[in-house]
Amino acid sequence: MNTTAAHHPTSVTVPIAALDDFCRAVLSAAGADPATCDAVTRAMLHGSRLGVDSHGVRLLHHYVTVMTGGRVNPRPQMQLASAFGAVASLDAKDGHGALAAYRAMDHAVELAERLGIGAVAIRNSSHFGPAGAFAVAAADKGYIGLAVCNSDSFVRLHDGAQRFHGTNPIACAVPLAESRPWLFDMATSAVPYNRVQLYKSLGWKLPEGVASRASGEDTEDPGEAEMLAPLGGAFGFKGAGLAGLVEILSAVLTGMKLSFDIAPMAGPDFSTPRGLGAFVLAIRPDAFVDIETFERSMRRYVETLRNSPARAGARVLAPGDREWEEADRRAADGVPIDPATQQAFRELASRFGVELPFAGRKAG
Amino acid sequence: MNTTAAHHPTSVTVPIAALDDFCRAVLSAAGADPATCDAVTRAMLHGSRLGVDSHGVRLLHHYVTVMTGGRVNPRPQMQLASAFGAVASLDAKDGHGALAAYRAMDHAVELAERLGIGAVAIRNSSHFGPAGAFAVAAADKGYIGLAVCNSDSFVRLHDGAQRFHGTNPIACAVPLAESRPWLFDMATSAVPYNRVQLYKSLGWKLPEGVASRASGEDTEDPGEAEMLAPLGGAFGFKGAGLAGLVEILSAVLTGMKLSFDIAPMAGPDFSTPRGLGAFVLAIRPDAFVDIETFERSMRRYVETLRNSPARAGARVLAPGDREWEEADRRAADGVPIDPATQQAFRELASRFGVELPFAGRKAG
Repeated sequence: MNTTAAHHPTSVTVPIAALDDFCRAVLSAAGADPATCDAVTRAMLHGSRLGVDSHGVRLLHHYVTVMTGGRVNPRPQMQLASAFGAVASLDAKDGHGALAAYRAMDHAVELAERLGIGAVAIRNSSHFGPAGAFAVAAADKGYIGLAVCNSDSFVRLHDGAQRFHGTNPIACAVPLAESRPWLFDMATSAVPYNRVQLYKSLGWKLPEGVASRASGEDTEDPGEAEMLAPLGGAFGFKGAGLAGLVEILSAVLTGMKLSFDIAPMAGPDFSTPRGLGAFVLAIRPDAFVDIETFERSMRRYVETLRNSPARAGARVLAPGDREWEEADRRAADGVPIDPATQQAFRELASRFGVELPFAGRKAG
Repeated sequence: MNTTAAHHPTSVTVPIAALDDFCRAVLSAAGADPATCDAVTRAMLHGSRLGVDSHGVRLLHHYVTVMTGGRVNPRPQMQLASAFGAVASLDAKDGHGALAAYRAMDHAVELAERLGIGAVAIRNSSHFGPAGAFAVAAADKGYIGLAVCNSDSFVRLHDGAQRFHGTNPIACAVPLAESRPWLFDMATSAVPYNRVQLYKSLGWKLPEGVASRASGEDTEDPGEAEMLAPLGGAFGFKGAGLAGLVEILSAVLTGMKLSFDIAPMAGPDFSTPRGLGAFVLAIRPDAFVDIETFERSMRRYVETLRNSPARAGARVLAPGDREWEEADRRAADGVPIDPATQQAFRELASRFGVELPFAGRKAG
């Protein structure tokens, strides 16, 4: 679901290769080592390719701020802090969360190759971007991938009146033979926070029960929204419980900060590491069942889903269908870049002497 | 959350030990072997102790029907069908799902003891009862436990107009030092189906957006409800995606039946095995982080949650708090047995020559 104003009429449209080059050049000029440049660009481009613009190249300016400010180490010597059987803990040494998450998932896949399943908990990390990127990294190798991360508090508890959990996403990708993976990437909040910001800028009312005032009471006025509701409406204990599961895997199992102890992503302090944890898991399907059975059943599941009856005027989609369709469009037409991100890119281009990816291009 | 009419004024209240004895005696007389009697009783009593009456001793009559009818093998020779590193597949040989799930979780814990994590996929199984029972079995040994299972179709897709997924529960339990575990057990539907039945019998309107007519349109009339909505309301793609993850782990990874292929739990055919799958996972916390850090962080998380501000007139609870409180009450006062279950117990007592657990007791 496209949750930003990227299709704003004053957006410019930029080819993916040009965006990729620009991000790498800026990150490198900001002091990031090659592995960090590669991982951060790859994660942001996952977002920008699939239409998840909140977690796309919009983040480049923020990442430069935190890597030059001292919050995130642009040249970390990440290392396994411990290893035991099919699990490990990766110490990210305050490096970028995307590098940590790709490294952790690579290791989880290696463990799963040998032992059927592998899990890696990540310590001393930072904002990792779109969780789905790391789940897809496993699925692209034929493994089921799961990635979760907690984040600074934004979401009340069920019946709560305080920001408690982060939006604590859960992403899972499952390989589909000869096709892009089944890809599920959800926040455990009722809506993303940027939806609230978008509705505010558009002057729209929010749907019922997705945001609250400081008292915890629901509000449909995005200007009054002090916190998000957990997924589930009247059954918000489900969304809060899922957020709790993410919290436990990401923060408790790593000894890292609980959501309510994490410094805000948006600053003002950009010099202190935030002590984030995260957790990834990989499963090797043919360790459980022969691969032909797995592939046949997965295909039957997804095809039956796509062909099942829909409500009047609606379409039934498998998780990821909408995003992969958008990725096809953007591979052909380029990625729309909203005016605020254009301006941020101009500043970065000027600051680091890097050529803009949309210089001379017309509005899309 | 108590979702049944167990507190009906004509309920009788029965001590847990008497219920336990009655269930074992009936199951044994119906032909179940000792391991099956033990596992099925233990799982039902998990539900009846914690107030999850939909998955408590109410199921005894159904289980006798399927074990004497041929659907469920009351004396199965369950065996590991395959094993690879930290994972395995258990063939339940059409035995009872509760026995299969306890066996699978025991094996997952053994794997996690040696390798930090263990996962067991279950084949040729049957209805396993309350998913939380098997998660708690892991937590009681100091492990994080996860249990999921798909079931016959009852829940539409997001924007769908057909029963597609089962209520596909997700249960997770996390050990809490010197306390009962954090316990999260949710259906991925917006509400349980028995909530719809309860509202129908009470003549109440359903909450908005939790059930649909055959066309997929929402209805608040429980009499019109043909299917449930997925968790999430306007964001029901999240509940449907979570149900899909359960489906993939339970049915695709085992080669077992997808929800829409599973024969209805309620019959009329009680002689054919239903070919259910399920999936359990255990995580050893101290394979990731020293146990003092894990316990301290888990305690801080749960205590901060319990003490966080609530909406006016409400209470904030951790997952499981309500259920463990109910378990304390029922340990002292006994378990309320609704009139329909009393009648079923009378039939079973008469059929198998077993003494009723509430003979001579007054209404509670």
